[in-house]
Amino acid sequence: MSRKRFLDTECPVARALDQVGDWWSLRIVLQAMYGTRRFVDFQQQLGIAKNILCDRLSRLVEHDVLRKEDVGEHGSRYEYRLTEKGRDLFTVVVALRQWGDKWIPTEFPPLDLRDRENGAPIQAVRVLAGDGRALDVRDVFTQVDERQNTGS
Amino acid sequence: MSRKRFLDTECPVARALDQVGDWWSLRIVLQAMYGTRRFVDFQQQLGIAKNILCDRLSRLVEHDVLRKEDVGEHGSRYEYRLTEKGRDLFTVVVALRQWGDKWIPTEFPPLDLRDRENGAPIQAVRVLAGDGRALDVRDVFTQVDERQNTGS
Repeated sequence: MSRKRFLDTECPVARALDQVGDWWSLRIVLQAMYGTRRFVDFQQQLGIAKNILCDRLSRLVEHDVLRKEDVGEHGSRYEYRLTEKGRDLFTVVVALRQWGDKWIPTEFPPLDLRDRENGAPIQAVRVLAGDGRALDVRDVFTQVDERQNTGS
Repeated sequence: MSRKRFLDTECPVARALDQVGDWWSLRIVLQAMYGTRRFVDFQQQLGIAKNILCDRLSRLVEHDVLRKEDVGEHGSRYEYRLTEKGRDLFTVVVALRQWGDKWIPTEFPPLDLRDRENGAPIQAVRVLAGDGRALDVRDVFTQVDERQNTGS
């Protein structure tokens, strides 16, 4: 698969997608968030081909999103666990999940994420201003706006 | 490119990734958020091959993330504009951007998104409980937790 790599780009979205912007990678991260740790369980739960899973797990380990641990007491048994960097994708995954539920509804009810502390539903993830107002794309600007658009 | 499609799956993350989980698609959406509308400008600003851009724009239009409008007064001139569904990816894009800035730093300073109303920086996007506490992956549960993990 040839695609441009932008690890040194100014654009953090491009850098992020370079590491986890593969269709399978974020699903593997999500599955790890559900508690899956073993190769065979990822394979079974995602219905993913062994060679693709193997490749994606290696890349996620290489990028320090997952770490591979030998947890075998008698012989080797490997588990894949989320690093702090991997766990920090939680916001991205929840935002994607809520977008999917809102805009691509199916016969299945929306997945319901709840607060362990009291069982209450979580809020919709939003971009918030310093003072707590919800912002949409038209409410923000960045320095890059000008640079990006001088090309047009 | 053969990959499994999960449009009818229970998992909204899989459904979302099926529509925008391509490495280029979210970058096109981001570029549209910067104000880019014309094919030639997307091509120039993203450094993307024509055939790939053409394919990704068609898919985004098909999925109602972008709409294609004829804005020509004398003859045809097309623009691609974000739909409401597309604009609603703002949260996902900002979450990815903040993750990229935090975990994949470069020589470039982090991109600085600011509130148009007062020029102040926006907050880091977080998953919040009903009462406003920030939550991480270990603070939530879903009904699917059990179903997903009975396979293991």
